Amino acid sequence: MDSFDIFNPVNIRFGRGVIGEAGKIARRYSNSALIVTGKTSMRKTGVLDNLIGILKSAGVDVTVYDGITPNPTTAEIDEAAGIAKQKGVGLIIGLGGGSPLDSAKAVAVAAKGDMPVWNYLKTPATEALPVITIVSTSGTGSEVNRYSVMTNPETGEKPGFGYACMYPKEAIIDPEITASMPPQVTAATGFDVFVHILEAFTGKIRNAFSSAYCMQAFYLLRDNLVRAYEEPANIEARGNMALASALAGLAIDISGVGIMHALEHPVSGNYPEVAHGAGLAALAVPSMKYNLEACKMDFMLIAHHFGIKRAGKSDDEYAYALIEKTEDIIRTLSLNARLKDLGVEKDRLPKIAKEAFSTMGFAIQNNARAAGEAEVLKILEESY
Amino acid sequence: MDSFDIFNPVNIRFGRGVIGEAGKIARRYSNSALIVTGKTSMRKTGVLDNLIGILKSAGVDVTVYDGITPNPTTAEIDEAAGIAKQKGVGLIIGLGGGSPLDSAKAVAVAAKGDMPVWNYLKTPATEALPVITIVSTSGTGSEVNRYSVMTNPETGEKPGFGYACMYPKEAIIDPEITASMPPQVTAATGFDVFVHILEAFTGKIRNAFSSAYCMQAFYLLRDNLVRAYEEPANIEARGNMALASALAGLAIDISGVGIMHALEHPVSGNYPEVAHGAGLAALAVPSMKYNLEACKMDFMLIAHHFGIKRAGKSDDEYAYALIEKTEDIIRTLSLNARLKDLGVEKDRLPKIAKEAFSTMGFAIQNNARAAGEAEVLKILEESY
Repeated sequence: MDSFDIFNPVNIRFGRGVIGEAGKIARRYSNSALIVTGKTSMRKTGVLDNLIGILKSAGVDVTVYDGITPNPTTAEIDEAAGIAKQKGVGLIIGLGGGSPLDSAKAVAVAAKGDMPVWNYLKTPATEALPVITIVSTSGTGSEVNRYSVMTNPETGEKPGFGYACMYPKEAIIDPEITASMPPQVTAATGFDVFVHILEAFTGKIRNAFSSAYCMQAFYLLRDNLVRAYEEPANIEARGNMALASALAGLAIDISGVGIMHALEHPVSGNYPEVAHGAGLAALAVPSMKYNLEACKMDFMLIAHHFGIKRAGKSDDEYAYALIEKTEDIIRTLSLNARLKDLGVEKDRLPKIAKEAFSTMGFAIQNNARAAGEAEVLKILEESY
Repeated sequence: MDSFDIFNPVNIRFGRGVIGEAGKIARRYSNSALIVTGKTSMRKTGVLDNLIGILKSAGVDVTVYDGITPNPTTAEIDEAAGIAKQKGVGLIIGLGGGSPLDSAKAVAVAAKGDMPVWNYLKTPATEALPVITIVSTSGTGSEVNRYSVMTNPETGEKPGFGYACMYPKEAIIDPEITASMPPQVTAATGFDVFVHILEAFTGKIRNAFSSAYCMQAFYLLRDNLVRAYEEPANIEARGNMALASALAGLAIDISGVGIMHALEHPVSGNYPEVAHGAGLAALAVPSMKYNLEACKMDFMLIAHHFGIKRAGKSDDEYAYALIEKTEDIIRTLSLNARLKDLGVEKDRLPKIAKEAFSTMGFAIQNNARAAGEAEVLKILEESY
């Protein structure tokens, strides 16, 4: 029987139009906030202007940092933290997908401290400004957990980190905001949810709590991922995917990720134009084949949750049916690109394999089947 | 799509021997603690003395209040709060089953305030002393949620209440402590877990988060309730029941209880010698029959999770199979007593029916099928 701790202090507020409460909520923490967001989508959809209006009406002074790119760099985070310090804000609001949300948490640490954010990989942070996440994708799960992923633009390293002080105080999950996602974003971020569940459910440090979140998220994903992709305005599907994202985010907060995330981070770290979910889709099937024997019972259980009929299948066949189902989902979501198609250069694979260990070693450790650099390189080659 | 908030800040520490960390954990909050516990079992098993030793070794001053009875009264809580004030303790530690844990939270409120605890039913509490729960049964789920149930000895009223300030800071869940439960306590408290899941899973304000906890708890219960009852020293079964209790406790924290709890509270409020789980067992089958039509799909799903074979059953038959399964569990656990057998007087039933509304109205409201006083009285009569 393994020992474990469960702790997640995030106040999750879910519902249509719940962004309208952002002003009242923000005021509990500060009357001066920095919004951390990207350049384009939150402006284009009007969500950023709407949020600024809501905050100002509640008497919250607003500064906007909109320099976060899809694979956010330490330079962006340090720049935003500098602005937060200079303005003396008491609250960081992350608005958007995983990148601005991850960044908001890192900015909250760097703005409270006196070091460049990269230093906090080695030196644990014990305090941070309060953070509110307002999520626009479903998604990384970043809205409800302590994790932040950032890229060192000089080295291509893309580690994840997270300390207790980095839990958002509040997560505002409004399905109407996620309804603005274009289909390819719905696909890539939704596939990320799938991989979170798969890796948390099969990882070595899983427990009854992470399994509970994963099972419920599997059901929601099964019924809503393709629907949200094919019917962007279907608010019920959007709401259920937003819940799946949050549940999966709680699951990885407890039980971490595995080899797919360990490999994908250095892929998009080295090639920032690669969307995280697209990278995962390229790596998923070879990784699942690698894990098949170690995860046989779990894959069978997930196949069952996915509604795959057992019929006359042997255990091996039934477990393998989940891999076929995954290939099917990848095709349906138009995510069927190999690493080569994503612009990865073949001679970069050994560097990527090395970085899986140096920056995401905990995820390799957590993977159901042990792997060394040679095995990891082989998965990369099969994904190429 | 319903809106909802999710918030549970309890730090849950699960594992064999984790009570050994109680001193270190307590010191984070105060160097002076009041242990709130019952008269007998924690002394007899040596757990109380062990805990006192652990706390003292960590430099924590310890006072013990051991006057909590199985259906704790406001008089006991006010007495313990008076001692906490007089000693100026900074921490309340609840040790035992649901009664001492519920009481610890109420004591924490009353010790911080300046009114008798009964007044906090009407006047919301906004602050409380920090609470650590150390649970010995599986169980009420009180170890991980904000709820407290107390009995007014003058009127027999037994309401539940809970405010955000009443969340325990820490829940210490050590299966070795629960292994000391005698079989009849394992049965009664384990049946309480079953009813928590059933009511949170079928209640009107259920959501994806409470359903996640319920499903996982169903699996754990299915495989471990009877095992823990028949093999008291089976530490794996004990651990899994402790997890089921915690998951169910989180589920009711989010989605409340239903008509069975609404009826049982006035039963054991009027007859304090009735164990909560025994009262629930008497009420379960008539209540489930009352809810059957409204809960048909949910009962079918739960029947599936319980591993009941569908075979050629119609929807009605498959849903009803869960009620038969419940009867079966009640018999196996030797809980098959009617209200009459528990000492309830027949002419008290109308008073009990009234109190279900006056003290547990929120649970009636949450029940899948609406019920008035006449319907509730009929369920009581069928349970008699």
